[in-house]
Formats: sequence, structure tokens, C-alpha cells
Amino acid sequence: MDKDLFILKIGGRVMDHAEQLDEVLDKFASVSNPKILVHGGGNRASEISKKLGLTPRMVDGRRITDNPTLEVVTMVYGGLVNKNLVAKLQALNVNAIGLSGADGNILPAVKRPVDKIDYGYAGDLPDYMPSSDTLQLLLNHGLVPVCCPLTHDGNGQLLNTNADTIASYLGVSLSRYYRVTLVYCLDKPGVLKDPDDHNSVISQLQPDTYQQLVQSKVIVEGMIPKLDNAFSGLRLGIREIYLCDWKDITGSSGTKITLP
Amino acid sequence: MDKDLFILKIGGRVMDHAEQLDEVLDKFASVSNPKILVHGGGNRASEISKKLGLTPRMVDGRRITDNPTLEVVTMVYGGLVNKNLVAKLQALNVNAIGLSGADGNILPAVKRPVDKIDYGYAGDLPDYMPSSDTLQLLLNHGLVPVCCPLTHDGNGQLLNTNADTIASYLGVSLSRYYRVTLVYCLDKPGVLKDPDDHNSVISQLQPDTYQQLVQSKVIVEGMIPKLDNAFSGLRLGIREIYLCDWKDITGSSGTKITLP
Repeated sequence: MDKDLFILKIGGRVMDHAEQLDEVLDKFASVSNPKILVHGGGNRASEISKKLGLTPRMVDGRRITDNPTLEVVTMVYGGLVNKNLVAKLQALNVNAIGLSGADGNILPAVKRPVDKIDYGYAGDLPDYMPSSDTLQLLLNHGLVPVCCPLTHDGNGQLLNTNADTIASYLGVSLSRYYRVTLVYCLDKPGVLKDPDDHNSVISQLQPDTYQQLVQSKVIVEGMIPKLDNAFSGLRLGIREIYLCDWKDITGSSGTKITLP
Repeated sequence: MDKDLFILKIGGRVMDHAEQLDEVLDKFASVSNPKILVHGGGNRASEISKKLGLTPRMVDGRRITDNPTLEVVTMVYGGLVNKNLVAKLQALNVNAIGLSGADGNILPAVKRPVDKIDYGYAGDLPDYMPSSDTLQLLLNHGLVPVCCPLTHDGNGQLLNTNADTIASYLGVSLSRYYRVTLVYCLDKPGVLKDPDDHNSVISQLQPDTYQQLVQSKVIVEGMIPKLDNAFSGLRLGIREIYLCDWKDITGSSGTKITLP
């Protein structure tokens, strides 16, 4: 294992601000290969759902994916967002290749079982780590995967899967072959001691501090599954994980997630 | 050059009929590798455009691609249609990988110059044939490209390109390395002597007969660019080209395009 792999996850507001996005892509382009970009959908999925007369339904920050919603996210994540990111990266001389989890079978998943909530066509990634032959083939030949938050069940059904989870999952599954650095690009410059003060970035976050900040409700909502993913990713082999904003995708001025 | 390559182009009504599409994909799955699927969008792009309040504009069977229309075709061709085809093929044990022309830079194009008609973001493929390194890499490793009718200009702009043209272009550019058979799956069982009689399939079509049938208006509209593409594809190196319907994608009961 002698190669570094850089995985950048982008989502949220940066996806809806062309200038910020262009700056992030410029910086991403300047990172040497191998590298992977994982993206969410920003607000486009909700915006297009509304135009089509659908009402987005969210529970605990997670989208309920009924069939019309699955069609919208397949269009927006797999098509509109993914293909535009690929075209922009190609213009920056990055040989990007857009992928859903069905493409090359890189992310087989299972439809989330119905418990108290029926999340619809939401896909959960299995605990085992498939070998990612296709991803390695692409990475070894200088191609740069651009992964959208769609998976499939192997029986022809596409599924909607959280992009943070995909980023962490890819990091773990590739950490057998690479020293993986994973960077989550957020709407704020890192994990904050004071949610209203962007200068209160916690430079290193360990599990005990994390638990305290969850209990005191400093860390809430979408940040909790993101950080749970991050800690479990570190335990399962990812070398370094950072949370930062679009101004600094190396993570050096953001929060570094660390284990004791 | 010791390998066969099978390229199947699907479009039109078969895309909108699940049972026909499933049968075509079953047959495609049974063809041994290497192979490529090229698809159009069926009626979904027009249908979703209408739902979004856009009015599709066509001139001579070609869509005028203004910016909102480009967004729709990027969503529908690159996302909804492409990713569902990939998921269905994966369920048939075909290791499909969905691609636009921007992915892996497989189809660089140029925005069509404005002459009498401004086609908007329509992409024309250049005369020269790029090397298709990415396609060969994928084909050599058992992956099956599923190509949607989108290209890019290399400067970050996606473009809408005719799927028939893409199929023929890919066939020519890969005919240096493979014996290429290209099959166009149509809404009718081949080129017909009598447009109202599906039993009047012309089994072999040569350029002189083609010209006569155009002059006598037996061959009209969308069939003309399709057949022009086919004849020029044969001249530029494609081994065999067939036109047929979904019932027979080997082309044996359809029309074989031949040169004198």
C-alpha cells in the first residue's frame, strides 16, 4: 500500500453557488491522482420536485424516496448534477467519469427494511466491503470517479443513498489498497464550539468530545450521522478525515477527526 | 484485429414499453462481450419537458436544445434513462457502465454553428476519430458501456447529440480495433418497400436503391439521417450494419445495409 487516495465529498450550498463550486473544482483538479469526488444534489432535487408538483418529504434530515421522488433524484443526481460536474472537471483536464452505484456494480446495496418509518427506495450499504474492482481499474488508469448518491439492489432497482455514507464507504473499501484521506466539504468551516461563531472551529475532534457536544446539543441533526460515519470510517481503515468548507478543501483549517 | 464488437442502438417506442425493453435487454445480455449499448430517450424527455412547462421544439426531426431543454435531456438521458438501463443490465449479470460523452472524454464534440437555424446546445462530432482509450480500457475488462446521447465541448459545456450518430461514430472509431457489427433497433422491422406493410422489409439495401427510395419518398424524415449515418459508417470501417425492430436485435430478419 504505497499510494495516497484523496476523496472529497461535496454537497449543500456549495452545489448551488457556481463561483464556490468552480473554486472547489479548481482545487480538486490540482490534487494529484488518484482521487474521487462524491457529491450530493444540493437543492436542485427539491426544486425540480416542486416544479413537477411533488412535495419533498424529509424525516430526521433524510428524504423519503417514493417512486416519483426516486425518478427525480435519478434525474438530478445521476444526470443533471453528475454530468455537469464531469464536464466541468474535463475542462480542467481531469479525466472524470461519472458513476452511480449501479455503474460497474461499484455500490450494491439493499432497500432499507420498513420499520417505524418507510423510507421507500432508500438504499443501505452492506457491512461487508466489496472489492471495488471497477474503481481500482479506473483509478489505476488515471480516471477520476465522480460518484452520485445512487445505489442499486442488483435486481434492477435503483436506490437513493446518503452521499456522506457513500464517501465513507468508498474510503473504507479502498483503504486496503490506498492511504485514504477523506474530506467532507460542509456549509461551515468545520465542527464549531459555538454554532453561531464560524471562528470557533474545533481543530481536532475525538470521540469523547464528540459525545459531549452531542449531549449538550452543540452538534445536532445532519452532523450526527456525518460524524458517526466519519468515526466508523477511521476505525475501519481510513487514514485521515477532515471537515471543512469550500474555502479550504485540504481540511487544514477545518476539523480533523481523530481516534484516541 | 481479432475481436468482434457488437453495438446496439435503441430508441423510440421500445424505450417506453417495459416488456419490449426487457426482451431487448435479455437478448443484448446474451450476446457475448465486448458490446456497447447506445440509447436515445424515447418520449420521456418530451413528457418531462411538458410537466416542467417547456414546449419541445423540433425542426426536421431534430430537437432545438435551448438551456432549459439541455437541463431536461441531461436529467432524462444521462440520469433517468441511462441509470435505469444500467441497473437492469446489472440484474442480467452484464457489468454495464453508463457514460455520456463527457465521461472519460469519450465523445468530445463542438456546438453546432448557427446557420439558418440555431439548434442551441446541439453537439456535432468532429470528422477525426479520437482514440477512445477509455472505451477500450472498459471493453478490455469486460465492462459494457451504456452510452447516452450527450457530448461535451471540452470547456465544461454539455451538448445534445443524436444517438444514431453516436452509435455510428463509436462504431467507426472502434473499427480500428474490432470487427464491428452495428444494429439499429427501430419501431419497424427494417427498411420497408411499402411503409404501411411491415412484411415488405428490404433485406439488403445498397446506396443506389436507397437514393431511389428517398426520391420516391418511400424513405422519409428520421430514416434519412439514420441511413446516411449507416452508409458513411460502412465506408469508414464498420463491418456490418443492420436495421431491425425489438423482436430481432441480431438483425437477421431486418435490413442489412451494404456497399456495392
